[in-house]
Amino acid sequence: MHRLAKALNTQHSTLKTTSVEHLISYKTLLSFTEKIFAKIGCSDTDAATAARALLSADLRGIDSHGVARLSGYVRLWEAKRVNAAPAITIEHETPSTAVVNGDSGLGLVVAPYAMQVAINKAKNVGTGWVSVNNSNHFGIAGYHAMMALEHDMIGIAMTNASALVAPTFSIERMLGTNPICVAVPAGNEPAFVADLATTTAANGKLEILQRKSLHAPTGWIQDKHGNASTNPHELKGGGALLPLGGDRDHGSHKGYALGAVVDIFSAVLSGANYGPWVPPFPAYVPMPDNQPGKGIGHFFGAMRIDAFRPATDFKMHMDQWIQRFRNAKPVAGQERVLIPGDPEREAQAERLEHGIPLLHAVFENLQELGDRFDVAFDR
Amino acid sequence: MHRLAKALNTQHSTLKTTSVEHLISYKTLLSFTEKIFAKIGCSDTDAATAARALLSADLRGIDSHGVARLSGYVRLWEAKRVNAAPAITIEHETPSTAVVNGDSGLGLVVAPYAMQVAINKAKNVGTGWVSVNNSNHFGIAGYHAMMALEHDMIGIAMTNASALVAPTFSIERMLGTNPICVAVPAGNEPAFVADLATTTAANGKLEILQRKSLHAPTGWIQDKHGNASTNPHELKGGGALLPLGGDRDHGSHKGYALGAVVDIFSAVLSGANYGPWVPPFPAYVPMPDNQPGKGIGHFFGAMRIDAFRPATDFKMHMDQWIQRFRNAKPVAGQERVLIPGDPEREAQAERLEHGIPLLHAVFENLQELGDRFDVAFDR
Repeated sequence: MHRLAKALNTQHSTLKTTSVEHLISYKTLLSFTEKIFAKIGCSDTDAATAARALLSADLRGIDSHGVARLSGYVRLWEAKRVNAAPAITIEHETPSTAVVNGDSGLGLVVAPYAMQVAINKAKNVGTGWVSVNNSNHFGIAGYHAMMALEHDMIGIAMTNASALVAPTFSIERMLGTNPICVAVPAGNEPAFVADLATTTAANGKLEILQRKSLHAPTGWIQDKHGNASTNPHELKGGGALLPLGGDRDHGSHKGYALGAVVDIFSAVLSGANYGPWVPPFPAYVPMPDNQPGKGIGHFFGAMRIDAFRPATDFKMHMDQWIQRFRNAKPVAGQERVLIPGDPEREAQAERLEHGIPLLHAVFENLQELGDRFDVAFDR
Repeated sequence: MHRLAKALNTQHSTLKTTSVEHLISYKTLLSFTEKIFAKIGCSDTDAATAARALLSADLRGIDSHGVARLSGYVRLWEAKRVNAAPAITIEHETPSTAVVNGDSGLGLVVAPYAMQVAINKAKNVGTGWVSVNNSNHFGIAGYHAMMALEHDMIGIAMTNASALVAPTFSIERMLGTNPICVAVPAGNEPAFVADLATTTAANGKLEILQRKSLHAPTGWIQDKHGNASTNPHELKGGGALLPLGGDRDHGSHKGYALGAVVDIFSAVLSGANYGPWVPPFPAYVPMPDNQPGKGIGHFFGAMRIDAFRPATDFKMHMDQWIQRFRNAKPVAGQERVLIPGDPEREAQAERLEHGIPLLHAVFENLQELGDRFDVAFDR
């Protein structure tokens, strides 16, 4: 990994890179993942869609949400929480909105379907907004939001997830890490892609600290009594992740509010489960009692640029926006100010060329999965 | 102020309350403000609209954005940066979108107009999205977003503002405090209203610390070299407010990304000024050179609930959402977990009953304004 990419990827991958033991080409990993999805009963089209969506996380350096979770998806299918051949339907619609029922399908398949509905509506009436129920985890929000870019649209994607986050002043875990992605096309510059969990730190970062037995910065987690903690294992003892901001003095009520908005748009609008009732990702964790809705919820938006102003004007100004921010004077010790999406895009270029780094544990896990389903896995 | 409301209003008003010297009734303040706006040339309708929008900040406990700024708006008019009789127009539209040109009007008038356009579009096609150029400061985002509630719609409002905030790794101030409000109707419960600046702390909070010569918590501000600072006067020396998160370890790149999204939706979509080119609020601060657009930008959205699911179903679940979160187990020393909008709503009830507390300096300033325009000001 060259120096700049390394510096930029501190957020997602540098810590992992130090313990990487295998570099696998994207093509190999994609083909393997497609075959596994086909083996559990996905159609060829769905298997290809799901594999591309899942691996977009690995390409973009968000290792926690990529192929490392493939066996987790398979376990959800084994537990009959994922339907590999869903009949995805539109339950209700208006010219600019729809509610999509994912029929318990893989979120990796349901989400691209729903995002396409949003894009189609934007073609017709300027914007499209789709809330989804009865779905499962969809990988990274960025993949779905970025589908809008090639249509000269702004793309928006968000999802709720099982409760790991304590709202400000709460001991209880009530919200998922509930990410939001906004992808905005530019002209000569690469697209602006803000893809963020509404917590101080994503769960994947905590997992890295756990593996390496390092302390977390204050403001990431609290213990089971709601006290600040730096122990990355705190969640196992009843602790919680903290909303962006960390504590009230530093604006955690804002991170909480943003996570809440994601929950409401994704699930209260669609009829999915919300708050502490969202289904867990690990198949061995029992489903919450008295669930008020169906599955996990997502929310997607597409806004056609030329529904506001000519796309060429917009892109010229978006280029100017990006250039002005990139050229802002950096603090000492930093090369430059980043544009949202820069680190992930540079990770993708790097990994497409040199391969995707896998921890040995993930590599072994994929080999076992391959053995079980009679799908070859090697580099 | 009763105990609970006091506890809840720590964020906006308790610090001020300690130095309050005048309690003025809402009715008195509204009538005074309307008359001042009429005196600078607003139509009666516009003066009433602007006064209601401005004073909604005082009612909701966000003192920094309310009547304390009235003389600032007047100075902008004197400097010919505000047009008191604007011909607000729709420059471009589709069934679900519009770009509104505010003709340099008061944002307090332009924003309600644009939000109404969004609401009307939502009535027709499910949702409405309006980006605004050539406007001025609009008060608090909450007032405009909440216009949607009575129509059983979700309301969204955001605005850019002059640059006080340094993106992650930047020494330069590139973004305003760029607030986002999302207002969601409920059934028996009061509406969910998340109204937040995309910074760790709003500028108004810093002003309070300045007046009282108190230090700010770390993570709110940086000095002119980009070092963490607790000096609330740092902005005068070239320092900056920090994005929500405070520093990179605590997710400031997320606050920066959110503030950037507000800037892009409000200004790059509409043709307003963005980034460091946004016009300043103080009339004595010169306009930035080489501005790429017109005035300040806003962005509004309205989503009809029943464009997704029946409003009664939604409200029943929204009530359940609110009740479950409000009843989450609180940390020791806190009475309960708050729902976004609780503190502001309780401030409003309190202030409608007992009056709006004004600092002596604000009181004097309004008296001077009254003398100048021959408008009586007393309690």
